[in-house]
Amino acid sequence: MRDLMTIAEAAKAAKSAVAKLDTNAKNAGLHAIADTLLAHTDEILSANRLDIEAGRENALNEGLIDRLTLTADRIAGIAEGCRQVAALPDPIGEVLWQRTRPNGLRIGLRRVPMGVIGIIYEARPNVTVDAAALCFKAGSACILRGGKEAFHSSKCLSDLMRQALADCGLPQDAINLVEDTTRESANQMMKLNGYLDVLIPRGGAGLIRAVVQNATVPVIETGTGNCHVYVDASADLDMAARILVNAKCQRISVCNAAESLLVHRDVAEAFLPMAQKALAPDHVILHGCPRTMEILGDSIVPATEDDYGREYLAYEISVKVVDSIDEAIAHINRYNTGHSECIVTESYAASQQFTDEVDAAAVYVNASTRFTDGFEFGFGAEIGISTQKLHARGPMGLEALTSQKYVIFGNGQVR
Amino acid sequence: MRDLMTIAEAAKAAKSAVAKLDTNAKNAGLHAIADTLLAHTDEILSANRLDIEAGRENALNEGLIDRLTLTADRIAGIAEGCRQVAALPDPIGEVLWQRTRPNGLRIGLRRVPMGVIGIIYEARPNVTVDAAALCFKAGSACILRGGKEAFHSSKCLSDLMRQALADCGLPQDAINLVEDTTRESANQMMKLNGYLDVLIPRGGAGLIRAVVQNATVPVIETGTGNCHVYVDASADLDMAARILVNAKCQRISVCNAAESLLVHRDVAEAFLPMAQKALAPDHVILHGCPRTMEILGDSIVPATEDDYGREYLAYEISVKVVDSIDEAIAHINRYNTGHSECIVTESYAASQQFTDEVDAAAVYVNASTRFTDGFEFGFGAEIGISTQKLHARGPMGLEALTSQKYVIFGNGQVR
Repeated sequence: MRDLMTIAEAAKAAKSAVAKLDTNAKNAGLHAIADTLLAHTDEILSANRLDIEAGRENALNEGLIDRLTLTADRIAGIAEGCRQVAALPDPIGEVLWQRTRPNGLRIGLRRVPMGVIGIIYEARPNVTVDAAALCFKAGSACILRGGKEAFHSSKCLSDLMRQALADCGLPQDAINLVEDTTRESANQMMKLNGYLDVLIPRGGAGLIRAVVQNATVPVIETGTGNCHVYVDASADLDMAARILVNAKCQRISVCNAAESLLVHRDVAEAFLPMAQKALAPDHVILHGCPRTMEILGDSIVPATEDDYGREYLAYEISVKVVDSIDEAIAHINRYNTGHSECIVTESYAASQQFTDEVDAAAVYVNASTRFTDGFEFGFGAEIGISTQKLHARGPMGLEALTSQKYVIFGNGQVR
Repeated sequence: MRDLMTIAEAAKAAKSAVAKLDTNAKNAGLHAIADTLLAHTDEILSANRLDIEAGRENALNEGLIDRLTLTADRIAGIAEGCRQVAALPDPIGEVLWQRTRPNGLRIGLRRVPMGVIGIIYEARPNVTVDAAALCFKAGSACILRGGKEAFHSSKCLSDLMRQALADCGLPQDAINLVEDTTRESANQMMKLNGYLDVLIPRGGAGLIRAVVQNATVPVIETGTGNCHVYVDASADLDMAARILVNAKCQRISVCNAAESLLVHRDVAEAFLPMAQKALAPDHVILHGCPRTMEILGDSIVPATEDDYGREYLAYEISVKVVDSIDEAIAHINRYNTGHSECIVTESYAASQQFTDEVDAAAVYVNASTRFTDGFEFGFGAEIGISTQKLHARGPMGLEALTSQKYVIFGNGQVR
């Protein structure tokens, strides 16, 4: 077992070789990984069974077991994901701009690899491959630390990926899995200054909080989502109902599912019964403010202050009647997590005000919050969804995994 | 005295009002600040005298006293700086791109204010105004914490700036000075999650290290600079000497001054005596590797391992003969701080390899490292020079103080 410092040294030593690979070499590596994973499906499934058996012994809940479980189909999907990353344009080397200064210096801004990227994630074996593939295509070495419940699966996948790279003559230390899954190794990883250029936590609120609190390396905070749908006074109410149902129910477990409904008082009497009816087939529990309770009565439950800040990730939603768009925006900016927010409106002024003033990574007019996703935005695969304001905001594709440098061409200029 | 949490709440409450200001309002505020500072020059000088007297009592060295000292001319320069920031283009609202997706969604990426920006800096009263002006133009509220030795000056400047904004009907809580200058308040500021969107330390290595180690809010690390000039085998040696002298001596106290000279062995015998002669008028002390010593003899001092990592900020430079450009690049990537690096060469291949492989914010071919500076790059005033890879790298002008958000216009799209 390589300890964390051995891995950190290996990744740091590999980063310049990875950064120098041209697009063809990187794509060949990604296809080799896909081929190798497919060819070793049985081996991966055997390793995965060890994790599942241990999970059942430790009484993991069925949701976690499901996320942990690989099948031949899922492995094929993971391999196909590598090929999709290979098909994405290479972000490295793009010159974002170049200008000639009055003194003749040509100053250009070039997209370059990040260096070494750390990812801390939960017990999802697919992330081991997805994250490695994205980092590799972005020209960076990676250090992956997955949840211990998926250790055997991740170890097998990581070994196969490293072997696939080595077989192509590519640097296998581009991909590194932390094999020590103790809390100490996670804490040590968060303080790998001088080795890690960025650390990205991917998982639930607790994991992200731990990384933000403890890391001394630069972090990109990815997202929990307390997302709102605001139905404006001028909304097309049928559209609002369709968007609400989609945002709440299309997939309840994701960070861009709606968790709260705000309704302008002028349309509350008309819309709230429509909303209740539209959400009924999915048995959504409504947590309503007093005015919502007046309209919908005892068929719903009263909202507490806590409800407005909750990410249910379940068939539940908080509901509040507001007096104005100003109140809606203030409420959202108070309770949201900076993820995805939606207004349904036919008013030009309301659409302008909402998109200007709501503070979030993605602000929607007349569309479901469920579109905040790398593929839907046209970026291809994503490493996560940033809810911070630095570096990257919203879905993070390959470009978010890169850095920049200024390259300056002169002919002897001095100051 | 407002305590830190009072200030944090005030800044957070002000940020949406600041974000909404149009360019004309922001520029009017900046000119009002300039006018107010000029009109109160005597008051500022009186406050400054308190700091200087205290500094002398506490035996501050003359360099620090000089940085602390304001004069009528310096105040006029600070006011002029505000007007220059007013003259810069407003970065806010720019749509970086907008694309229509196959489903008709129009997804655009818009530049938006950061929110609340924290700056921790040393005893330089001018930074109080420079930083406030840049943050204000970038549409963000700021929380400033300067060195305690400049407290009276900074307090006076901050009060005047706040008054100037209030007199124009602009939110005075856009600008906030931390009046508690204890170490505890600095540590507390580094952990203002939920209030500070970014914290930028501006000052020496110790300050920056303390912020990187202790902050739980997102940080942009600004730079110490161990910058190299590499004279390639193919270099125009006269040009190399001019660049070396400029990079080392034009201003020794700045982060983009050269601290190390690397010379290809093929030109070492020819160039090293030229370099020594060129640096002689400034009495630069050369710390040479054994091969440099062989050529220049006892007229210079031997370099220790420590010398290669030192940011002298003085008339001193380390000198090393290398066997190849590969060795030069490896040496630079080992010892540099990711700031500014220069190759002097007439070789196409060498220029490509150096700019591709050197890992730094600014990589120069045939030009002095002294150009890494917001004004020289055409950005106008800068808040600092980032040496990290996340968010901003190199000189940070107004754009580096902004964030982005996706704004999505639909007509009822659901997934």
